Amino acid sequence: MTHAPLPGPIDPPARLLMGPGPISAYPSVLRAMSAPLVGQYDPFMTATMTETQELYRGVWSTRNEATVLVDGTSRAGIEAAITSLVRPGERVLVPVFGRFGHLLAEIARRAMAEVHTIEVPWGQVFTPSAIEEAVARVRPHLLALVQGDTSTTMNQPLDEIGAICARHGALFYTDATASLGGNDFEADAWGLDAATAGLQKCLGGPSGSSPITLSDRAVEVVVARKSIEAGIREDGDPDAADFVRSNYFDLGQILDYWGPRRLNHHTEATSMLYGARECARVLLAEGRDAVIDRHRLAGAAMLAGVRALGLEVFGDVAHKMHNVVAVEIPDGVPGDAARTVLLEDFGIEIGTSFGPLHGRVWRIGTMGYNARQDAVLTTLAALEAVLRRFGAKVPVAGGVEAAADVYRAAA
Amino acid sequence: MTHAPLPGPIDPPARLLMGPGPISAYPSVLRAMSAPLVGQYDPFMTATMTETQELYRGVWSTRNEATVLVDGTSRAGIEAAITSLVRPGERVLVPVFGRFGHLLAEIARRAMAEVHTIEVPWGQVFTPSAIEEAVARVRPHLLALVQGDTSTTMNQPLDEIGAICARHGALFYTDATASLGGNDFEADAWGLDAATAGLQKCLGGPSGSSPITLSDRAVEVVVARKSIEAGIREDGDPDAADFVRSNYFDLGQILDYWGPRRLNHHTEATSMLYGARECARVLLAEGRDAVIDRHRLAGAAMLAGVRALGLEVFGDVAHKMHNVVAVEIPDGVPGDAARTVLLEDFGIEIGTSFGPLHGRVWRIGTMGYNARQDAVLTTLAALEAVLRRFGAKVPVAGGVEAAADVYRAAA
Repeated sequence: MTHAPLPGPIDPPARLLMGPGPISAYPSVLRAMSAPLVGQYDPFMTATMTETQELYRGVWSTRNEATVLVDGTSRAGIEAAITSLVRPGERVLVPVFGRFGHLLAEIARRAMAEVHTIEVPWGQVFTPSAIEEAVARVRPHLLALVQGDTSTTMNQPLDEIGAICARHGALFYTDATASLGGNDFEADAWGLDAATAGLQKCLGGPSGSSPITLSDRAVEVVVARKSIEAGIREDGDPDAADFVRSNYFDLGQILDYWGPRRLNHHTEATSMLYGARECARVLLAEGRDAVIDRHRLAGAAMLAGVRALGLEVFGDVAHKMHNVVAVEIPDGVPGDAARTVLLEDFGIEIGTSFGPLHGRVWRIGTMGYNARQDAVLTTLAALEAVLRRFGAKVPVAGGVEAAADVYRAAA
Repeated sequence: MTHAPLPGPIDPPARLLMGPGPISAYPSVLRAMSAPLVGQYDPFMTATMTETQELYRGVWSTRNEATVLVDGTSRAGIEAAITSLVRPGERVLVPVFGRFGHLLAEIARRAMAEVHTIEVPWGQVFTPSAIEEAVARVRPHLLALVQGDTSTTMNQPLDEIGAICARHGALFYTDATASLGGNDFEADAWGLDAATAGLQKCLGGPSGSSPITLSDRAVEVVVARKSIEAGIREDGDPDAADFVRSNYFDLGQILDYWGPRRLNHHTEATSMLYGARECARVLLAEGRDAVIDRHRLAGAAMLAGVRALGLEVFGDVAHKMHNVVAVEIPDGVPGDAARTVLLEDFGIEIGTSFGPLHGRVWRIGTMGYNARQDAVLTTLAALEAVLRRFGAKVPVAGGVEAAADVYRAAA
């Protein structure tokens, strides 16, 4: 059918990815992606799955047995969690403080839940008391709360929310896609029943695998709804009447595949498994707290740098994620054209945003492999040059020196 | 939390994967998996997505504009097709001739369709008239039919089914996961409205990306059900009342992400995209028909080989897929123990099967990169040695020579 000449092997241009994600992967993660495949039930494969579960327990800071990967991008993990935990008609409460709160509400609505939302203006987070008031009023089966919403850069504090949910009998789920690995996260200590993420932010891998962890209480819910496929069902296997309205996202089946029964579900995405394993391995090898500190430092340096370039920072900076900052695009500077010059002439990518912030802010990330001094300083030097090219008045070397000062002070 | 010593970088053992899939990937596909990442809206990224669509039009033999990837394993593509095409309560007809027919029925049931099935014994396929009788009786909205069911190795002829569906006003969907690339496939000529696959069989890549193609008629159905997320919705955007009961699998949204509007949905799994692109590229570079012929030849050689070893072949051999053969495990040979020796001592993997065939047959694949003479002969030599080790009487070098004869005759 096609008569166009065939393209050659993939050969991406050199890019320093300093946007809100995806970001440049750790080199060792890219190497892991090209490791040879093994069979689905090869002892090496099942051992690698088990090993990866244990590595992610370290990443999530949990003892949850039910710590696995969902084969898909980060929103696959979100949908698996919500669709498996919430029966049609059950109430879900979503506090919305950016685009990804809307996404959680939308996914819950598609799961035929009764969805309630509360909102704060973009750039803010919720107080625990505002969340408790809503939980007491709505009495949700599930509270679904984004931790870090890249659309606004805000990091919602979660440490008091688990106790609120426990007081009111709600399950507590968080989407930590943008935050995990670059900011504090304590699945067990914070009382989480479910948490999901992706690889393409602070974990420093490619999009396409979604780490998930479930408390024993959450596992009870998904196991009660388990229905085993007719093609592989045996006598006595469950076939719940209130089955999950998805086969692919039925966590009961997914846990049976990762668990000792190894019951065939999908064919695990082997290369993504290798990559996900390596993301966790490099994080734990460097040390979980050390990686978070590296993100804290890179974020502080970038924040100092953009301010020293005279740029206004969007939102409640005290509640900003370490790994991304939103800056107001200066008057007179065409935001998208400037981003294009940064990409095409310098090979550096920064991001725009969504909805009310589209065209109003740039989002600059410092995450995963790129939470590094050289990446921060190079980006600030290039940004200064581009701002100047578009006629903005910026202090000479101000951004770079302010960021370098932060690194010097920490050394 | 974890105190065990950290494992090293991933280092899989040498394996020749000659089971029903996943199989050893093409080396160039593994290389593509480790290419550096680029941003989600990098011109290189969007160009790569567009280029990959065109490559898959060649693989599917279609002019369908709506030819994309679903980010997940092959059953993610199945669920996206069924969930997006079928509204709750609509009738779906599934002719079942193996495990994966049961899977299509199960996914349709979870999508709250009214599911009807017809069955033939495992090892057989349906006649067109049996399918037409059922279509006329059930009057389904969608006929969902597996092309190649690896559980039985059967290849259901599809060339007359599109006309049957057209006569009765049904949409025609096929799951070509196990067959695409190794057997004839003509999406347009056969009148398909939707087809999905995976990379891990004849396409010679890792599991984790699901190619899908939709006819214009299928696109009309999914677009009519499109609902755009609140977080990125603009004035005039649709918000259908009979929305797809999944965000992740809403093909209307997925097509908007791959289409000219590039509306943000998930973050495309970049490494899997690179791999999927390379799978299609190597297939088209060798030539679609040449690749199918290579599978036909390897399959014929393996069939001659196992027969010359005295093994009985399961099912209707005239309707066997080229890329896999099921052989009866000889009396007195412990099937799983023999497979373990083949894996551990020879590094060669073959498969068992599911349901009624578990423990009764081995499934031996010759697909993708491994549809090669050296892979066929090596497997037969090792299988002969293992059979002998377990006390089976087998002709010396019979399998290897019979297979080599097939290759010699074709040279």
